[in-house]
Amino acid sequence: MTENVEWSAHCCVTLAWLGDEPVPAGILARFFDLPRAYLNKCLQALVRAGLMSSVSGPRGGFRLARPPQRITLMDIVVAHEGREDAFRCTEIRQRGEGNDPALPEFRTPCAISTAMRRAELAWRRDLATQTVADLMAAAPPAAAERARERHRRLRG
Amino acid sequence: MTENVEWSAHCCVTLAWLGDEPVPAGILARFFDLPRAYLNKCLQALVRAGLMSSVSGPRGGFRLARPPQRITLMDIVVAHEGREDAFRCTEIRQRGEGNDPALPEFRTPCAISTAMRRAELAWRRDLATQTVADLMAAAPPAAAERARERHRRLRG
Repeated sequence: MTENVEWSAHCCVTLAWLGDEPVPAGILARFFDLPRAYLNKCLQALVRAGLMSSVSGPRGGFRLARPPQRITLMDIVVAHEGREDAFRCTEIRQRGEGNDPALPEFRTPCAISTAMRRAELAWRRDLATQTVADLMAAAPPAAAERARERHRRLRG
Repeated sequence: MTENVEWSAHCCVTLAWLGDEPVPAGILARFFDLPRAYLNKCLQALVRAGLMSSVSGPRGGFRLARPPQRITLMDIVVAHEGREDAFRCTEIRQRGEGNDPALPEFRTPCAISTAMRRAELAWRRDLATQTVADLMAAAPPAAAERARERHRRLRG
């Protein structure tokens, strides 16, 4: 999993704390000491996924496109990693000498693929129950106010 | 996730079906039409993880080192992918201008890291409940006998 997921989760929580005013990628980059160009690409992926919107112009930047309770960790992971399972079944059960790919049993999913998929579904289901609002609630009580103070200073 | 996990799961089930006699990597490679040298490396990783044992000599090969009900999908995944989480927390919450890494709250785990970890634990827990014996039971009824037949022919 790329660092984009970590960056995005922190940016989503921070934008939620900062309110409706768009925040430029440059400010968010200084907020977490991240490379601005890469962070900008990362945030653009969230815009494409419908999690953030970007506002152009001198007072432009990024803001959440949905309320924090309607953005899940699954949404953030899918925005960067896609929907494909980590385990890829290549149907080796049908291959090899003396095998017969035409056997009717090969029309039903492979037991190994099904088992791996079940575990990935457990992971996805868990991520889908955790929202940006939950992350805000689980953060230390002073974190929101400190984020707003730091933003005011960085904004100048 | 590499194809090693798929290859290993199929080889574990097949070895369990074939019984105690060691099966050479070359036979398993022909069984699934896999590159022999890569499959051999893959099986060696399972030996190092204590899931298979390898027997040298003219009648040598690989066999399971534990009963099928004591080898889980988690064991197989860990043998190849290690124990590290896919999500890596780099503590960006402590970084950036106007931040103070000495704040006491940074001694407790980050809420985002905790949330991502919870989902990975759900995945691991699910994989840990699924054994090679379960995979054998979930395979089509004729699969075990067909594996033994194919093995007899390949062995010659």
